[in-house]
This record gives sequence, structure tokens and C-alpha cells, in this order.
Amino acid sequence: MMVNTIEAKAGGVATPLGYRAAGVSAGIKANGGLDLALLVSETPATASAVFTVNRAQAAPVLVSREHLERSGGVARAVIVNSGCANACTGEGGLAAAYEMAAETARLAGCAVDQVLVASTGVIGVALPMDRIRAGLPIAFGALGADQGSAAARAIMTTDPSPKEAAVTVDIDGRTVTIGGMAKGSGMIEPMMATMLAFVTTDAAVPRPLLDRALRDAVNDTFNAITVDGECSTNDCVMLLANGASGASVDETTYDRFVHALKTVCLTLALGIVRGGEGATKVMTITVTGASSDEEARRAAKAIANSPLVKTAVHGGDPNWGRLIAVAGRAGVDFELSRAAVMIGSTVLFKDGRPHDEAAPQAAQYLKGRDISLSVNLGAGGASSTVWTCDLSAEYVRINADYRT
Amino acid sequence: MMVNTIEAKAGGVATPLGYRAAGVSAGIKANGGLDLALLVSETPATASAVFTVNRAQAAPVLVSREHLERSGGVARAVIVNSGCANACTGEGGLAAAYEMAAETARLAGCAVDQVLVASTGVIGVALPMDRIRAGLPIAFGALGADQGSAAARAIMTTDPSPKEAAVTVDIDGRTVTIGGMAKGSGMIEPMMATMLAFVTTDAAVPRPLLDRALRDAVNDTFNAITVDGECSTNDCVMLLANGASGASVDETTYDRFVHALKTVCLTLALGIVRGGEGATKVMTITVTGASSDEEARRAAKAIANSPLVKTAVHGGDPNWGRLIAVAGRAGVDFELSRAAVMIGSTVLFKDGRPHDEAAPQAAQYLKGRDISLSVNLGAGGASSTVWTCDLSAEYVRINADYRT
Repeated sequence: MMVNTIEAKAGGVATPLGYRAAGVSAGIKANGGLDLALLVSETPATASAVFTVNRAQAAPVLVSREHLERSGGVARAVIVNSGCANACTGEGGLAAAYEMAAETARLAGCAVDQVLVASTGVIGVALPMDRIRAGLPIAFGALGADQGSAAARAIMTTDPSPKEAAVTVDIDGRTVTIGGMAKGSGMIEPMMATMLAFVTTDAAVPRPLLDRALRDAVNDTFNAITVDGECSTNDCVMLLANGASGASVDETTYDRFVHALKTVCLTLALGIVRGGEGATKVMTITVTGASSDEEARRAAKAIANSPLVKTAVHGGDPNWGRLIAVAGRAGVDFELSRAAVMIGSTVLFKDGRPHDEAAPQAAQYLKGRDISLSVNLGAGGASSTVWTCDLSAEYVRINADYRT
Repeated sequence: MMVNTIEAKAGGVATPLGYRAAGVSAGIKANGGLDLALLVSETPATASAVFTVNRAQAAPVLVSREHLERSGGVARAVIVNSGCANACTGEGGLAAAYEMAAETARLAGCAVDQVLVASTGVIGVALPMDRIRAGLPIAFGALGADQGSAAARAIMTTDPSPKEAAVTVDIDGRTVTIGGMAKGSGMIEPMMATMLAFVTTDAAVPRPLLDRALRDAVNDTFNAITVDGECSTNDCVMLLANGASGASVDETTYDRFVHALKTVCLTLALGIVRGGEGATKVMTITVTGASSDEEARRAAKAIANSPLVKTAVHGGDPNWGRLIAVAGRAGVDFELSRAAVMIGSTVLFKDGRPHDEAAPQAAQYLKGRDISLSVNLGAGGASSTVWTCDLSAEYVRINADYRT
């Protein structure tokens, strides 16, 4: 059996064979920035997606879900705009999302249900269809296998930088490439899917296996991050597999494929956290000693979303008491006398007693940009890791002034 | 039948007959501020309390709970320190809380289990018992019926101002007074009790009725506020009834008494919200159209704790889309096509459609300091109101620098 080697490489959504991408300016963003991204597979690709669990689902979410169902999980193109979420826009918004897909299908020369559509930006504003209509031919004209980075920039809103990743993995003696791009900075707490992410591969993957792979990968990556505990109306992760590499994924190679897919998804997810609104630090929160995986995840999420923990880390304050307080209120089994808190590798609370003599060491560690916090709930043997960022005054500034 | 008139009056915890209070400086706070509060009833009072549901319960919570049980719900004195929470302090912390109660009992001349104890401040720091011991006689020396305000100041931590309230209500032809004080500014989301609050009355109330009255009042007041979604290790609300007015509360006068009690508790609770860390505005969030009271409360709490909603209000941005997005992810029944959002009396979203033409009017309204937000979930007939404050950069500053 071969060694499961996954190699990171420069690249993104158009790096796997048989994909082209584009990112152009259609005038949707007031500042004239890139705001229309297009992704096309040369041949029909097997497609899978997970969508927001928010009950206020945006028009593009409804349309993409319907198209995936009608096409039986086949996609040729994905069209994405930033600058307008097309959410809470009623019947008019739904019509706009359908038209955006139909125009894309016409230019791509494929069936309309083979087009997936996504939008991101302000909620409740009508999509400027005249600009989308005018922008689409420009996007098709700009398509190229070297335009993945332009597409990654065109899906950004408050993101400080684009997020791309690619890896190669050997499957059946052939080199399979997986590439992806993501956007998201605020309103980030994946409850099923999160923000927008688009991942491509040139492996052939039967649809049931592709669905399973996406769910497995998302659970440990996009669903394990949070910026502010919010879950948007537009969140989705889409995965296309066009088989252009000649390699096929089956049950025997599934684990290797999923491992590579997780690598791409985790890189993108951590990019979102690192670029979280106002973020100055990435926090890795590991909860151990939980009585179940679900409780471990719940406690880790509670800590990750705690404004008191996030501000303490922002201020470099080794305030382990806040970690204990959140673990205690998280609604999970918790035994104070057996609980423990570590900041980095420094134990600050153990067996019911503080170790504040170690606080200076922890304070020094907190000056770094990558911070690990560990909490043992003292209740069992399950564990979970989630990632988040700190909470800064800049987060408030960004979100108090977003539309003004 | 008499009209149920409740009159607000100046005063606090020592305003009802038969109580004295004190607030002194014992040197627990580094800045030399008032940090030891004492409340004494001239005669044994019937006592009831609700405590934090956090599983990391501070030593004073454990001791007060035990004393209430052992005394059968009778209290003569309450001793409270600020500047140190005596939480997560192990066996030593428990011994300190016991000793603090025992010293108070000795000076008050009562049984030790008739003393309730509370602490607030930083978690995980040992209580400086030498200072408590030295401060207690000073507090007893300062006791007076006119010292309620000093006590209210002595329980403050990051609170910008003390919180006191008092009302009178006619029961059985006699004037009953209810007074109270509270502290709390951050780490405020009551899940059962919240922060510290102490309420006294000179009515006589049988213990089962007093317990019921406290739970009823807390549910609609302290449990309906949130500053940052946190629930502390030390939260408690204590209620003493000493009968000094000569009036007794029974089933026939229960509603009148609870109504007056709620008035005091709501005034104190709103004081906490108004003085929330970094707060510049008080937000009243009303959720209607829910399929149950419980779902209404859950959606209202989700909105009240949403950093995106809180920052939008802080910035004066009538971003109704964020309200819809939070309602949609709150895990409650929600029907977008029948949902509605009002900011003040301005409808911004109704029947699935935005009304952004009204946004300037809503933006003008958001310049005020008391903000009402209403969301109709479009799912049923239940409703709930909660109160919170906005999220400002100052909140981050306070909590990033709390210990440094």
C-alpha cells in the first residue's frame, strides 16, 4: 500500500485539471472592486453542496439547492457575486437568482440546472440585475486556468485577504488535485455549512461518495470554526468533481481523498478565522475530558464565542477564570474539582486549585499570534477542537459602520 | 377591592422597616474603594434566594445555599465583598467563605446559618481574610437605616453607578416597603439568577410564598436581561422578608406583592443593562409571533446576544437584515414570508419584503439612547421581551484590560 502523501501546492479553485475561473468587476460594489466570480468545468462535474441551516434562506441558496436536485448532482458552472446577498428580497430576489443562473447557462452552453449560484454582501438589497447581465459576458471572456486568484478576490466582502488552497494526492497511481477558495470574515458560525466556499477536484467521485466526503470534511473544518457565533442566510460550501485527472475515488481510496479534502477545507477555514473581522490572533480551543463528542464540541464552541474569553486573549490577559466560568455555564457535564485549564503549555488551574504563579509565563505566551487554550471538563474521555479569533475594538468599528 | 397602587420612592435595601446596612472599605480593592457591604435585619427574616446555574459555583454560593437549607430559610444578616469573587479557590476558598459567615454571625449575635454570604470580583484569587476580619467590625460600626446607598456602592465592581430601588404598596391596609440593590455590568446573562441582587421587604411572607414570589419576579426581570451572554460563578438574588410593617402576604395579596416586587427587580435589572460594560444604549427586544413562550424567549435572547445586532445599534445602522438572520438561526419556528421587523415604530421588513424607504426614519430613531426592536417570527401567537445594551469598543477595552 502506498504512503498517503498529500502535498500542498500554490493554487486554488482552477488548479485541478479541467477548470477555468474568472473574477471581474461588474459594478455591484460601490468601490468598483472585483465582485463577480465565475467557475466553469470543461465537462459536467459531479456536484455536492451543504447549505446554511438558517431558516431565513437567501434566494441563491434556494435556487442552488433546487438545481442540484433537478440535475441529480451535476454542475458545469458556478456564478457568485459579492456586494449584495440577495437575501430577504422576496419574489423579486428569487427571480433575480433564477435569471443569474439562466444567463450563465446560456453563455456556458449548458442546462440551467447545471449552474449553481451564490451571493454575499448586505441583506435585503435587490440584486442589480442590469449589472449582472452586463458583467457575465465579461466574466466569460476573462475565464482562464490561471484566474483562480481573481475569482478568490471577487467573492470577498469584509475579508482582509483572499483565501485559496490546493493539494495533490496520489490515487490509483494518478495525481489528483483538490483546490478551493473561500470568503467570510464576520457572521461566521457554521452550523452546517458556513460562509461561501468552493472546492474543485479533477478526481471522479460517485455522487453518494462525494456527498459523504463533503459532509465529513465540513464537520471537522468549516463547522469547527466561529468568528462571532452568527450563521448567515447565504452560507454554502460547494464541491465539484470532474474526473479530468483520470483517477476515480471509490471506497478503497475514500479515506485518502477525504484526508486531502480536509486539508484544503481546513486551510480555507483557518484563513477565514485568521481574517475574522478585527482579528489579531487565531485561537485553537481544545476541550478534553467531556462526557461525549457532542458535549466537547458544545463546550469548545461556548468558549470560542465567549466575548469575555475573546477579549481576554485580545488583551493578553491569562484570565483562566473566564474559561472555567464559560465551561461551567455551557450546559455540559463539568466537575470543577477535576477540571483543568492550560494556556499554551502552561497549567493555570488543576485539581480545583489556581496556579497563578505561572501567570507571567502564560502572559508572555499570549503576546503571540497563534494561541492554544485547553480546558479539561473533568467529566469523561471525549474531546473536540475548534478555532476562532479574538474580539477587538476593530470588530465593533467594522460592524457598527458596515453600511454607513 | 383596593386599587393596586405601587409607588416608587427613593431608597434601597435599608428602606423597609427593620433593616440596617453599611458599606465600608476593607482594603480588598486595590484602589481603596468601598468593598464590604453588610445588611442586617433587626429580627430573623424569612429568606429566599436563587443562585447561578453555572456548574463552577463559587464558595459563597455553596455556603449560602447550605445555610438557607440548614436554617430552614431564616436570615439575620447578609455579608458581601467586592474585589474578589472567591471562585475556583478550592478548599481554602470554602473555608474562607465559612469563616466570613461565622465572623459576621458572631458580631450580629445570631446563629451562623442565619448569615448569607456573597462575593464578586476576579475569579481564582484567594479572599484576603485578614482584611475581611479587620473590616467586619468597622462595617458593624457603620450600620444604619440611612446607609443603603453606601452598601449599594460597596458591592460594585466595573459598574459605572450604584443600582438601588424602592417601592411601597398597600397590603391589608398597611404600607409595605420593598427595597433592593444590585451590582453587575459584564458577565451578565442570567440563566436562573444573575449577578448580585439583594431585596428586602418589611412584609411578613411565609417561606413557600416567598420562594414562589422570588422565582416569579426573577423570571420576568433579572432572567430577561443580558449584557454579553455570560453567566457567572457567583450570581445570586437574595430576598429577605422580616414582617416589621405588620402586614402579612397571603394568597389573596400575593399578586399585589409580586407586582411590587417585580417593579423593584425590573428597576434594578434595567440599571444593570444601562450600566452594562461599555453600554451607550439600552435595547428593548420584543419577539412576537412565536410558536411558544419558550421559543419567543430563546429568539429574543439570541437577538440580544448577537454581536452583529448590538454593533449595528451601537453604530445607529437600521440593519434589519441582521435581525432576520439571527431570528432565522435561533433554532425556533420562523416563517420568512410572514415575518416582520420594526425599529421603534418603523416597519422595515414585512410580508417577505424590505421597506428600506423607511430606513432614514429608523436611523434617526437609533440616535436615541432607548431603543426598541421588534421581530415577528410569523409562526404563532407567543411573545417575550428581553433587555440588553449595545456592544461598543469600550466593552472590548474594559474586558481586554480588566486585570492588567
